[in-house]
Amino acid sequence: MTDRPVPAGCVIALDVGGTTMKGAVLDRTLTPLAALHRPTPRHAGPDAVVAAITAALSGLADRATALGRAVRQAAAAVPGIVDETAGLAVHAANLGWSNLPLAQHLTEALGLPVVLGHDVRAGGLSEYRVGAARGITDFLFVPVGTGIAAAIVCDGRPLRGLGHAGELGHVVVDPKGRPCACGSRGCLETVASAAAIAAAYTERTGHHVHGAAGVAERVTRRDPVAVAVWDEAVQALASALAVVSTVLAPERIVVGGGLAEAGNLLLAPLRTHLEQRLTFQLRPSVVPAELGDRAGCLGAGLLAWQAVGHEPSAVSGRAGQRSEAMAP
Amino acid sequence: MTDRPVPAGCVIALDVGGTTMKGAVLDRTLTPLAALHRPTPRHAGPDAVVAAITAALSGLADRATALGRAVRQAAAAVPGIVDETAGLAVHAANLGWSNLPLAQHLTEALGLPVVLGHDVRAGGLSEYRVGAARGITDFLFVPVGTGIAAAIVCDGRPLRGLGHAGELGHVVVDPKGRPCACGSRGCLETVASAAAIAAAYTERTGHHVHGAAGVAERVTRRDPVAVAVWDEAVQALASALAVVSTVLAPERIVVGGGLAEAGNLLLAPLRTHLEQRLTFQLRPSVVPAELGDRAGCLGAGLLAWQAVGHEPSAVSGRAGQRSEAMAP
Repeated sequence: MTDRPVPAGCVIALDVGGTTMKGAVLDRTLTPLAALHRPTPRHAGPDAVVAAITAALSGLADRATALGRAVRQAAAAVPGIVDETAGLAVHAANLGWSNLPLAQHLTEALGLPVVLGHDVRAGGLSEYRVGAARGITDFLFVPVGTGIAAAIVCDGRPLRGLGHAGELGHVVVDPKGRPCACGSRGCLETVASAAAIAAAYTERTGHHVHGAAGVAERVTRRDPVAVAVWDEAVQALASALAVVSTVLAPERIVVGGGLAEAGNLLLAPLRTHLEQRLTFQLRPSVVPAELGDRAGCLGAGLLAWQAVGHEPSAVSGRAGQRSEAMAP
Repeated sequence: MTDRPVPAGCVIALDVGGTTMKGAVLDRTLTPLAALHRPTPRHAGPDAVVAAITAALSGLADRATALGRAVRQAAAAVPGIVDETAGLAVHAANLGWSNLPLAQHLTEALGLPVVLGHDVRAGGLSEYRVGAARGITDFLFVPVGTGIAAAIVCDGRPLRGLGHAGELGHVVVDPKGRPCACGSRGCLETVASAAAIAAAYTERTGHHVHGAAGVAERVTRRDPVAVAVWDEAVQALASALAVVSTVLAPERIVVGGGLAEAGNLLLAPLRTHLEQRLTFQLRPSVVPAELGDRAGCLGAGLLAWQAVGHEPSAVSGRAGQRSEAMAP
């Protein structure tokens, strides 16, 4: 392989989360040339969020210009229900918008072509192209954090289901379980999300705990309530993943999100419980995500490059590395 | 649209079931020019089944020749785990084969190009192209009979999951339920398959019943045990379909197989129970299959035509109609 010079063009990518926006200027190998982190002003309402997205992308475009790089394309990955083809932010409860033609709005506001992505599907795309699912055509990317979702890739293609696919957090694992914010009962999120794990511990002990990480830490100290809460969460996750494995037969399950930071404290029992629930089915490997909280932004970068007909791959080995030029 | 003459070429298609093989000579509009029904000699072992498949396809080829039609391609749809790309019959418990290179074997035995399909996915393909899912890019085809399976089409593409996808019948609906032949407990098939429905009625009443149809008939007469058994089956089916709807967001669910012959006795409560289990999710329409027991054979015909670069559609309006030339 020759060490060809990387062309001067770049894309700008933004991952819009419920609390933080993470953006980057990315070259053709997905190496970040500049980065940006800003809070998402979600309590200020949807207009303020859209204005903040516009300002963030505009700031990234200025950075690219200052670096002497022509911006080929921009992309924003957003949460909720997203119709990528129509560029429509269909619904996001926590950001308060509904049927917002965000791609068109941003394209007009910035004078730059902008494509819209879905945060979890974008994360799945980056794990596929440059992360833990490289070379695997059938896999799930399952970020477990405040919520739980899945990006599903089958035969090398992300499933969109008209923008609604992947709501793994709302698979019912216990029909008699707790009420869920969605209106149902016993959804996976009510047992196995980081928030649910922390809440269950506090409810049973009366002790406040610093998130799921606090419960995980108590599991390592063999606190019996923490062990029980953690086990219930892992069993629920295994049940939901067993169903999805039975129906979709993924080769690999890539677990990301905040809970994956617990490493084998989560993954080892998850593998065991999943194995126990499968008989004749294909047994997926269960591995940690590789790109951490950069997955969404890198996925947006991939979408931007795809929009101009380029497919970055992991050849450079630098994709996703933190930029030296990172700035607040 | 002009009424162009249909070219003289044809394909031959065979759907290999656990009890019956259904075959046809199909023209470019999928109109059957000749048909064949024969028992599948599964109790005589896998070699006998392969010999019977070979003989059936050979017989169909002879029929085509007698009709003055050149055979462009043959296709066989088989049950179990099938790798269509490799032409491999990976596993079929009821036919006793394992890792059989069936496409290659049949191609050599017949001197005709033969592609291999999966029975349920082939059925889903025909409902998609010429049946109840025409124009719908995201749907499930769910035949409920002796077993339960699903063909999943997303973004207009059938999901294969390395040949293992669609095992809806082995989604666990009751972890404490009956043992399933697969080694697990409480699989959907143990509650909602035609066989399970009949068995549950007989177990609770001591009365032998003529299959699920016999239970359905008692439901219309308000036999309380039949009503209870039927309700449990419908609820289990609704639970499994709710999970799949949450994860895949299909626009439509096409219910086929023997149980679908119960019509609204099945579909009306299934719609109600499914609706009750969905909150924010996309609500799929639930409709009966249109092609009945011809779905698999027509799907094999579609695979055969696709293999030679032709995509039959429903334009002729005759696809799937029973052939006048049908023979035993």
